Amino acid sequence: MRIVGLREAGNVLVGELTDEGVGILASVEEFWTAPRHWLAERPQRTVVAGELVPPVLPGARVICIGLNYLKHVAEGSYAGEGVPPYPTLFARWPSSLTVGGAGIPVPSDEDGVDWEGEVVAWVGEALVDATPDEALAAVVGYSAFNDVTARRAQKLTSQWTLGKNADRSGVLGPLVPAAEVGDLRDGLKVVTRVNGTVVQEGSTDEMVYPVGETLALISRTLTLHPGDLLATGTPSGVGYSRTPPWLLRPGDEVEVEVERLGAIRNPVVANEARHA
Amino acid sequence: MRIVGLREAGNVLVGELTDEGVGILASVEEFWTAPRHWLAERPQRTVVAGELVPPVLPGARVICIGLNYLKHVAEGSYAGEGVPPYPTLFARWPSSLTVGGAGIPVPSDEDGVDWEGEVVAWVGEALVDATPDEALAAVVGYSAFNDVTARRAQKLTSQWTLGKNADRSGVLGPLVPAAEVGDLRDGLKVVTRVNGTVVQEGSTDEMVYPVGETLALISRTLTLHPGDLLATGTPSGVGYSRTPPWLLRPGDEVEVEVERLGAIRNPVVANEARHA
Repeated sequence: MRIVGLREAGNVLVGELTDEGVGILASVEEFWTAPRHWLAERPQRTVVAGELVPPVLPGARVICIGLNYLKHVAEGSYAGEGVPPYPTLFARWPSSLTVGGAGIPVPSDEDGVDWEGEVVAWVGEALVDATPDEALAAVVGYSAFNDVTARRAQKLTSQWTLGKNADRSGVLGPLVPAAEVGDLRDGLKVVTRVNGTVVQEGSTDEMVYPVGETLALISRTLTLHPGDLLATGTPSGVGYSRTPPWLLRPGDEVEVEVERLGAIRNPVVANEARHA
Repeated sequence: MRIVGLREAGNVLVGELTDEGVGILASVEEFWTAPRHWLAERPQRTVVAGELVPPVLPGARVICIGLNYLKHVAEGSYAGEGVPPYPTLFARWPSSLTVGGAGIPVPSDEDGVDWEGEVVAWVGEALVDATPDEALAAVVGYSAFNDVTARRAQKLTSQWTLGKNADRSGVLGPLVPAAEVGDLRDGLKVVTRVNGTVVQEGSTDEMVYPVGETLALISRTLTLHPGDLLATGTPSGVGYSRTPPWLLRPGDEVEVEVERLGAIRNPVVANEARHA
């Protein structure tokens, strides 16, 4: 089952993607009050055409782990510092999210943008001071994710925020219910391709900080709400740390494919698209 | 004029705070489609009692400058590195925001929380690749802000996100229209008090990175929308870098007062309040 968002008359609806269209389940606000209930419901009606959008609440938090695969830690700017003692968490605002098919702009002052294929976990219940087991049990689904990064903006100062929130830079695939996915620690293959060439190939069993442990840690500072997202970090093979560096330029196509979660594919476009 | 949010029947309304109550102008969504229009309107009706909330869109970005006053740069963990070459930007999600009067919890694993009195600027127009003058002209108002910080969580790794998003940790005062405030570069006094004792005393003319320049820089990577916020950084005098360190504990009261913007005052409460 693939759960997507659909914009209709200014509202975002959540539904199941089928061969016929999108089988509507609920508004995005209703869906996240009781995601397990809605995932077990049958669609009320089918919409055959419309704009797909991420099934994300505007007020959701997109919490991202920065360095979670050993070989990725070793390839980047933080290589000399070893594996960090806790998950390195940074923030995306939901307004940076988009879906497969959308053009990803290369913003001003950037030579290109960089790919980061990964897996997102969706929180389905409120979590305060949760244990890792409670936190993992609260995950209702997973999605493929491309954490596209504006490297120059990311590296301007010590904090990565700006370069991780460029317009239409976070590409989110459909939500696949957790029961269909199983345990990330069993190893789902994560592959990123640029113009058809494989540039990243990892497995989720390489993660240093598992989903349950990370959500539990977060819940000791802030209360997680249904609809919040955890992006679990990217394997090795990003572009900026290659010799020579390799960044996505307008005209390129980038694809992230995750086992059991499917593929998201996007063209890269020029900065002018931000002025449209 | 002081613009506040009010929760009524599950919706957030925006209105003017008066001696009689809140004079309602519009829903928060309507208000931010045309903030200058609504600021010039007369209230439709007055609500005499209700829960005050920040007049913030759930999908707004709260973009914060981390090191923007020279004496604050010199007192903290980054002292040895000098003034950063660009504004150090980090993210708050709006779900971390609250208003004056609310209890600020000390989260799990923290000895206390730290104060950071500052000024927030509210963006009133879309900005893409804007000039500093265009960006400053798009600011519709300012508020006093207490960027309360969970220092242990902030310093777990290189990224500050977790410690800057604790529950009810971002205290936002009423919005005061820009025309009533003037130019921050003329110097507004920012004072923070703990249990009545002055702990921070700065002036906005000490800022390294002014509002217009910072918003212009941001707009080269991401499109700013009406309702987005820029927290402009705190002067020297925070608690963690003192000898001995001084953090807010349950039972303490913290107040941030900014010239022309008014004061916000909050009690600090125990972690148990997060479970209520």
